Amino acid sequence: MDYTREELMHIVSGQMPERRWGHTLGVMESAVALARRYGEDPQRADLAALLHDVAKYWPIEQQEAVIRDHQLNMELLDYDKQLLHAEVGAYVAQQDYGVEDTSVIDAIRYHTSGRVGMTKLDKIICLADYIEPGRDFPGVDRIRELAEHSLEEALVAGLDSTISFLIEKQKRIFPTTVLARNDLILQIRSK
Amino acid sequence: MDYTREELMHIVSGQMPERRWGHTLGVMESAVALARRYGEDPQRADLAALLHDVAKYWPIEQQEAVIRDHQLNMELLDYDKQLLHAEVGAYVAQQDYGVEDTSVIDAIRYHTSGRVGMTKLDKIICLADYIEPGRDFPGVDRIRELAEHSLEEALVAGLDSTISFLIEKQKRIFPTTVLARNDLILQIRSK
Repeated sequence: MDYTREELMHIVSGQMPERRWGHTLGVMESAVALARRYGEDPQRADLAALLHDVAKYWPIEQQEAVIRDHQLNMELLDYDKQLLHAEVGAYVAQQDYGVEDTSVIDAIRYHTSGRVGMTKLDKIICLADYIEPGRDFPGVDRIRELAEHSLEEALVAGLDSTISFLIEKQKRIFPTTVLARNDLILQIRSK
Repeated sequence: MDYTREELMHIVSGQMPERRWGHTLGVMESAVALARRYGEDPQRADLAALLHDVAKYWPIEQQEAVIRDHQLNMELLDYDKQLLHAEVGAYVAQQDYGVEDTSVIDAIRYHTSGRVGMTKLDKIICLADYIEPGRDFPGVDRIRELAEHSLEEALVAGLDSTISFLIEKQKRIFPTTVLARNDLILQIRSK
């Protein structure tokens, strides 16, 4: 890593509005709590949460350019622009901030879409993004309750809220999110 | 074709309970009405609707065996058993009843899952299956209203009801259904 945690916090907070920085601090808090509960390294969770939205407020054209220029996941360019910042954030964390831990990079990369075969850290960051203390949307309290006993059940409920939101808004659903949800349901059933 | 329409009606009605035969008659009625409204051949719509559920009440093991033995779409075997009868029905229509019109075969094959690039006949059969007069589920009247002015908008609303039902029941969502829905939304936007 090229920076101390304090330096990174300064850099990241400078790239987003104050409200979003408050959200990031909330995700860090929730991610560390989930890591302690479910036996993941809290420092990894803290770092992935700190960086998860680093590219969220970059101009969309710039996010698209990073994906195109570096041949990242081009499928994302066909879908909702909200998906881009996760892929770009993963790239930035690695290239600009020298994060070498690929589990942290992947947790940033898949925090919005999910993926088949999510690691524990992937699940924690994706779930923390739904339930951090500042979040307030229909059903969030039920997801927080589920998070107390099952990462997978809480995360399915989170992804369900995203899919239902997209249905309500008549927007397309990113296929990987459905595959991630299907995979989590199989994991729950096989327990 | 190896049979007259009357012979086929006799054969198909003998393979399902009376209630389901009533549903089939309803889908035939709705499919023919939609065909007339949207400029598709009513006879094709009638034939595809007549045969769409021909394998619905076969034992699941027999449906799985047809798919395995004839190397049909094996992906279906991993998902909800309700998806199998469409694939098996398409096979049966072709092999056992001598239906040669591939547009009819495809409309049977994709009537439950949908697919990317649905033909007009695919859309009509899939939609008629949602809105036939015997159907009564939350939101069906809105789908019927949409069907009066847009095949695609009505079908998206139908697929949305399926996806929402699967979310509510904590069941997996067949990925092709999401891809079909995404494709229909693009078609609506490009109009």
